[in-house]
Amino acid sequence: MISRAFVTLVGAGPGDPELLTLRGLRALQEAEVVLFDYLANPAFLQHCPQAETIYVGKKGYSEYIKQPQINELMVQKAQEGGGRRVVRLKGGDPFVFGRGGEELAACAEAGIPFEVVSGVTSAIAAPAYAGIPLTYRGLARSFAVLTGSTQEGRAHFESLASVDTLVLLMSVTHLREITGDLIAAGRSPDLPAAVIEWGSLPRQRVAVGTLSSIAAEVEAQGLQAPAVTVVGEVVGLREKLDWFVPPA
Amino acid sequence: MISRAFVTLVGAGPGDPELLTLRGLRALQEAEVVLFDYLANPAFLQHCPQAETIYVGKKGYSEYIKQPQINELMVQKAQEGGGRRVVRLKGGDPFVFGRGGEELAACAEAGIPFEVVSGVTSAIAAPAYAGIPLTYRGLARSFAVLTGSTQEGRAHFESLASVDTLVLLMSVTHLREITGDLIAAGRSPDLPAAVIEWGSLPRQRVAVGTLSSIAAEVEAQGLQAPAVTVVGEVVGLREKLDWFVPPA
Repeated sequence: MISRAFVTLVGAGPGDPELLTLRGLRALQEAEVVLFDYLANPAFLQHCPQAETIYVGKKGYSEYIKQPQINELMVQKAQEGGGRRVVRLKGGDPFVFGRGGEELAACAEAGIPFEVVSGVTSAIAAPAYAGIPLTYRGLARSFAVLTGSTQEGRAHFESLASVDTLVLLMSVTHLREITGDLIAAGRSPDLPAAVIEWGSLPRQRVAVGTLSSIAAEVEAQGLQAPAVTVVGEVVGLREKLDWFVPPA
Repeated sequence: MISRAFVTLVGAGPGDPELLTLRGLRALQEAEVVLFDYLANPAFLQHCPQAETIYVGKKGYSEYIKQPQINELMVQKAQEGGGRRVVRLKGGDPFVFGRGGEELAACAEAGIPFEVVSGVTSAIAAPAYAGIPLTYRGLARSFAVLTGSTQEGRAHFESLASVDTLVLLMSVTHLREITGDLIAAGRSPDLPAAVIEWGSLPRQRVAVGTLSSIAAEVEAQGLQAPAVTVVGEVVGLREKLDWFVPPA
């Protein structure tokens, strides 16, 4: 008997339920099982009332689910019965710090066919919802996306000198150290910087400052994860290009 | 009289019509005028039969439309009559080398309110459709996106040493020079590299090689723009993670 097992890795986007793609929507509507994340807005689950839904977020519950367990559960759910259609729904884009690659590697090793539905990454969209384009003619012609998490050790900022715009994910907890490192690596303390908390959602909040002031600003406003940090001259464009007004 | 003029800057994604977002779909359905790009798949226009549609791509027609003319046309169309709802539909994400920021600045200067609908960027999705995640635990914890176009001068590759994955947009024409520059800047000639032409579309083609061989490979296969170049160890994951089979 040929197994129907199939895994679709779907990027849910930064949070706004309308930033889901049409292909992501279709995958949810056709799913038999949906494994979803902390950052995947629960509003997405309205698209798959027919599916068994399983929360596998690593935050927000007291029980911490480790990555190998998620991989194992995903493979197991896909192989159940004569094989099932599993959607793995992840915040942002599944191939940007989402460990989506590892999850697909687990599928490949188990012989389960899979596909990827790319999503809108919060690395680009959270700044966009704060009126900040990552590139802009004359101001920025390159950007880099890094993680501020220390899980794999700190980034080597000194060798990023020619990247115009820096985007730091998972950066709020260590923002004071990170901005200090960037200044130590030669970036101007006066370089504009912004932190966007819950980007694209009604609860979005934005802190703006400079490399030397942004950590204090974030602490003063009490911004926390999930948040995206942007560093570069493009942050100044927010004055002209800000457009998103979260509902009161 | 209050003008109804409004501009929505919409990212259409990398090409697959199903990678449009739900919010982008709604904007098209509500549009009175749609200004669309070379890279925005014509299939998107089926969503807006009610709208006046205007091609403003910079390629593919003999007449070359310059950016200031696009800005002017967009403002003019928004101000017509009692003001109109204009959608500016762009390939990929509108804030990644799309000059979307400049178009919104023109709106701001003309007093026209606007909004942004972030899109799936081809910088991430084209590699994803070739089975290449930009980050992967143990292999890559950062990526940078640059343009290979020489319009604003060449990138300074020597100072990108600590970025694990490089994504080069608009890079095919100058690929031989760019890969040469990267090797001269200290990257290993054996570093895996891939070029994805028309990523996410049925006509997608992929060339794989190393920094020293990829330019010849691309020439041998005759790949051309639009194409995305990826350089880094993550390219090797394609062997395990490739999934997209373009229809024959």
